[in-house]
Amino acid sequence: MTQIARTIQLVARPVGAPKPSDFRIASLPLPDPAAGEVLLQMLWLSLDPYMRGRMSEARSYAAPTALGDAPPSEAVARVLQSNDPGLTAGDVVLVHDVWRDHAVRKASDCQRLDPAIGPVQAALGVLGMPGLTAYAGLKHIGKPQPGETLVVGAATGAVGALVGQIAKLAGARVVGVAGGPEKCRHATEELGFDACLDRHVPDLGARLAAACPDGIDVYFELTGGDILHAALPLLNPFARVPVCGTIASYNATTPPPGPDQLPALMRLILTRSLTVRGFIVSEFAADRPEFLATMSNWLSTGKVRSREDVAHGLDDMVSAFIGMLEGRNFGKTLVKLAD
Amino acid sequence: MTQIARTIQLVARPVGAPKPSDFRIASLPLPDPAAGEVLLQMLWLSLDPYMRGRMSEARSYAAPTALGDAPPSEAVARVLQSNDPGLTAGDVVLVHDVWRDHAVRKASDCQRLDPAIGPVQAALGVLGMPGLTAYAGLKHIGKPQPGETLVVGAATGAVGALVGQIAKLAGARVVGVAGGPEKCRHATEELGFDACLDRHVPDLGARLAAACPDGIDVYFELTGGDILHAALPLLNPFARVPVCGTIASYNATTPPPGPDQLPALMRLILTRSLTVRGFIVSEFAADRPEFLATMSNWLSTGKVRSREDVAHGLDDMVSAFIGMLEGRNFGKTLVKLAD
Repeated sequence: MTQIARTIQLVARPVGAPKPSDFRIASLPLPDPAAGEVLLQMLWLSLDPYMRGRMSEARSYAAPTALGDAPPSEAVARVLQSNDPGLTAGDVVLVHDVWRDHAVRKASDCQRLDPAIGPVQAALGVLGMPGLTAYAGLKHIGKPQPGETLVVGAATGAVGALVGQIAKLAGARVVGVAGGPEKCRHATEELGFDACLDRHVPDLGARLAAACPDGIDVYFELTGGDILHAALPLLNPFARVPVCGTIASYNATTPPPGPDQLPALMRLILTRSLTVRGFIVSEFAADRPEFLATMSNWLSTGKVRSREDVAHGLDDMVSAFIGMLEGRNFGKTLVKLAD
Repeated sequence: MTQIARTIQLVARPVGAPKPSDFRIASLPLPDPAAGEVLLQMLWLSLDPYMRGRMSEARSYAAPTALGDAPPSEAVARVLQSNDPGLTAGDVVLVHDVWRDHAVRKASDCQRLDPAIGPVQAALGVLGMPGLTAYAGLKHIGKPQPGETLVVGAATGAVGALVGQIAKLAGARVVGVAGGPEKCRHATEELGFDACLDRHVPDLGARLAAACPDGIDVYFELTGGDILHAALPLLNPFARVPVCGTIASYNATTPPPGPDQLPALMRLILTRSLTVRGFIVSEFAADRPEFLATMSNWLSTGKVRSREDVAHGLDDMVSAFIGMLEGRNFGKTLVKLAD
């Protein structure tokens, strides 16, 4: 019996914010799994800001999604049929795939998950790529010390929420920025941030200065835009700026108007001995075992909490993606396709 | 007998490029040296780009020169009279002082130099602060590897010439940028750079791309401006950018017109996993003994060469300073006050 996969294809390169018409849903028959292959039913797909970058043709660290192809996504999937001795029907696996509900993949591309450890979709968030991003970005670049001040935007998002909680465990004072009072309350009351500022309220610069009386030692860059501009003047000598996202600019079609602040940034980097360091999580793949052990422990002992923002079905995936880029998600953005 | 010191005072904060009228020469009587003090005759004063920063009131890593005070300068001086057992008349010392020809200072502020090692004024250049800047900036931040490509502007200046030569000794390919064909010839023929581009010739971006077919792994930032903009698109993944000067912007009175390239820089830092790290040489003071031993050896074995651009007398100091900020110097800028 031939399995049909429903898939979401990129049919136009988004100009500015992605629109529903930049995508289409298609149905494609899958081949039968050959030797060494498995048929997968996707249970959860992940939505992450980096996917927006792949939809543009600008030079980046990975090739862009071709028009007519499905965008990339990490997925948690159930094995429906296996032609490989390493996996059996019913196994749940993690796989780098694309926006679709079924797939035929090599068994060697799939990593079996242990459902006993916790919700399998955590492999897409707190125990997955976003979690390792927060963990390794702080371990290798941010290096928050007891008594230092860390600032992070998108404070209730998949990465930001973990950055703040891990920095608190390291003894730092943590100030978040998030969109709206509900998210800010979540950051302080549930995640233990020392303060969280609403980015929709005017005068972010003055409010951030008031919330950081000793300046900023680590600014974990996920957003760019207003939050970056509020943080820069507050950076202390020898502050560290791990750069792992600039979501505010992902939809920009042209550079913002002048004046050109680039020379001022270079001067700030010089006069304050700043370290500004970009990274892609794959650089720190070797930290994965240590990260999984540590984060699993933090989760099971309640030291770290995570929250999910779940869309249901491929039909809602595009709007969930567009909403995430606008900051409308509240927690790690996931798409649930099947139980 | 009271010693009179001739000194140059800052009398107006420069707006844009410093003008002669921002300074005045004054004569001030010095006190007799008290116990533990020495009377110094300055032999050499150093001129360095960082001094321009101290003439502005913008927040920086050091307090600005007050109006009416003399700007700072490292100096090589002869002890004329000593009231301290540690120094005797005739000793030659290094001292952080100001723009003047005589001084009374604590002996403990003076570091005795050994004239047998080489020209004493090297303590202001290749064996001094500019030398340590190049050495430590490469050791700790730039880290050039064999076969990598390093680019540096101000390639025949005090720091740039050493950055290029040290990187060559580390096995890197070195491309300089300098002002005019004579300096470029010096960089390639005397200093051993693989290539040197004239910044006064149009289309620096395309010429730098052609000179760096494998991209840039280390961009040592001394200049900012056109050289920075030419280097940025060529930076390879994991490239390092030690930032120790942005001389092109020191005289700027307003930010350059738009568009605002800051978000594009942050995106580049992210997508290429760049390390952009500002530093002030004092951070690496602990490297001084190792640096002195290594650099002395390189000088005596001819592996590193240095060139000086000497002005004569306090009366020429202001114009030498203004010229250095415009890139008119050819080598380490010094002012010789006495034999």
